[in-house]
Amino acid sequence: MVKVTVLGGGSWGTAISLMLLNNGHQVKIWDRSKEVLSLIDEGENLRYLPGVRIPHSIITEPDINRSLEHADIAVIAIPVQYIRAVLNSIDKSKLKRKTIFVNLSKGMEISSLKLPQYIFKEIIGDFNYCTLSGPSHAEEVSRGVPTSVVVASKKRRMNEYIQKIFSSKTFRVYSNEDLIGVEISGAVKNIYAIGAGVIDGFGKWDNTKAALITRAIVEINRYGRHYGGKKETFMGLAGVGDLVVTCTSLHSRNRYVGEKLSTGKNLGEIIKEMSMVAEGVYTAKAVYNDARAKNIEMPIAFKIYEALYEELEPKKAIYDLMTRDLKSEFFY
Amino acid sequence: MVKVTVLGGGSWGTAISLMLLNNGHQVKIWDRSKEVLSLIDEGENLRYLPGVRIPHSIITEPDINRSLEHADIAVIAIPVQYIRAVLNSIDKSKLKRKTIFVNLSKGMEISSLKLPQYIFKEIIGDFNYCTLSGPSHAEEVSRGVPTSVVVASKKRRMNEYIQKIFSSKTFRVYSNEDLIGVEISGAVKNIYAIGAGVIDGFGKWDNTKAALITRAIVEINRYGRHYGGKKETFMGLAGVGDLVVTCTSLHSRNRYVGEKLSTGKNLGEIIKEMSMVAEGVYTAKAVYNDARAKNIEMPIAFKIYEALYEELEPKKAIYDLMTRDLKSEFFY
Repeated sequence: MVKVTVLGGGSWGTAISLMLLNNGHQVKIWDRSKEVLSLIDEGENLRYLPGVRIPHSIITEPDINRSLEHADIAVIAIPVQYIRAVLNSIDKSKLKRKTIFVNLSKGMEISSLKLPQYIFKEIIGDFNYCTLSGPSHAEEVSRGVPTSVVVASKKRRMNEYIQKIFSSKTFRVYSNEDLIGVEISGAVKNIYAIGAGVIDGFGKWDNTKAALITRAIVEINRYGRHYGGKKETFMGLAGVGDLVVTCTSLHSRNRYVGEKLSTGKNLGEIIKEMSMVAEGVYTAKAVYNDARAKNIEMPIAFKIYEALYEELEPKKAIYDLMTRDLKSEFFY
Repeated sequence: MVKVTVLGGGSWGTAISLMLLNNGHQVKIWDRSKEVLSLIDEGENLRYLPGVRIPHSIITEPDINRSLEHADIAVIAIPVQYIRAVLNSIDKSKLKRKTIFVNLSKGMEISSLKLPQYIFKEIIGDFNYCTLSGPSHAEEVSRGVPTSVVVASKKRRMNEYIQKIFSSKTFRVYSNEDLIGVEISGAVKNIYAIGAGVIDGFGKWDNTKAALITRAIVEINRYGRHYGGKKETFMGLAGVGDLVVTCTSLHSRNRYVGEKLSTGKNLGEIIKEMSMVAEGVYTAKAVYNDARAKNIEMPIAFKIYEALYEELEPKKAIYDLMTRDLKSEFFY
């Protein structure tokens, strides 16, 4: 039994807490919302994970520093745009050196374009850090649906330790030493989820979506390798696996943006209707600017950017992509 | 304008004929069924592609040798189990040396375990041959849904020629010199489609299906590389692209077999209910025997084999897979 503190009582934080409890560990949840913590105390996170019973053995703690006092493992289950604020509220001098931070967050911070690992390093510094990623809808994990993910850090033995703590008969954890590749996949995939939404808006275009997913991998690989990520990672659970789930799930906010685009709405109108930001909208802009500057060929991502920010008609975007120069199917 | 003969008036043969006609080519269809040919003459292939109008400019020809007389391109659009019989009915002495055969068929011949290219070589010999593969439901292609595929042969210039003839603004053809990799992908993917069906039988398990697809690529890659196939191919349209479409399409016979398995039926009962064989059932056996003999690690394919032939309970198969030794996410 190890002591785990989960920072964030959203759907993923709650689901992973239940899973770790089932694995026999002591689990504490911190959340900035007292209301969410009392829902958890009452036995059901009605706001973020309705319908799933939460045993009383899960402890809630409204003080973040107290929650981390004895933690062997601290899970970061916070949307990427809020990580900075939450980590800033931690008193580093009180952290245990051996605490391992396991990040579940995917995406890039909009203000800085930083991946979670760099926000963490900037604020918390040189503590143990790894990222858990892959196709893992929280609702499914909480219902015991068989799920496979990857834990990534450069420290192989730490990965193996986290594998053992998190694995169960419905949750399989592979290890991977390519942390940067895993976090880039998690961020960049959201761009293509917008493209998948556009396709869904036009109809049940299975051929088109399968081609989008396949060519997206080529683009993510080109981009990610520029930053030292490994092809194997983009082919793996955090890459193609998460991309498949994100492009086919009906619940993705990114997909929703794409679907609205295909009906002729513009980005301003779509954002006005949404209560929460769709990550891919910002990631598309960041990656467009970065990849153009670095001469990385990402034709699909660029067309999604143009559909979002330059009012390129989505159908024209697709036909532009289909009628480019004929190419060989190289991978790099 | 080139002269194309399409061997086979099924849904794929009819759809590709329409597409080639739209591209401005002369198109002849041969089929062994006179009934199918008259449906095509009457303007709608009610048996295999209902709802799609066929212009009268498509010519039908019941004599296979006459149909091939002036062909620049001969498209093989015949289920793999019937290729041998059809090719055997061709009088080779009358074939034009420059005719390029474009194979659309995917799978392994059950009796010989041969891929289409080897059946072709055995019967027709050293003629120009390439395979067109990728995520391409015929119904979608006939409706102009944007589709991307790959044409494969070792002859780069022939590939480029076929690219030009087949490409349109809704049909994008990439070239690939890895013919063996493309044909192996097309056959082996059917095993995992059975696995996808098992998962669908249990519920909407998006996490599980995404993991299946991801790890299937690893296995197809291991198997295919043994025969000289290239990793890039398994990552590409004929590999991951076709796998995604096959594992998510509701119309696949392989998926149907898996869905029935998950309800507790055994293979004998399932086959009795089906009018046509599901390729994956035989491919699973062939690949199981071959991969075991050659020590190629394909844990998912092996469990699907056991579920089919050794009455392993599908749920147990999944949990066996989830609880194997924890691994690193290597690719080879």
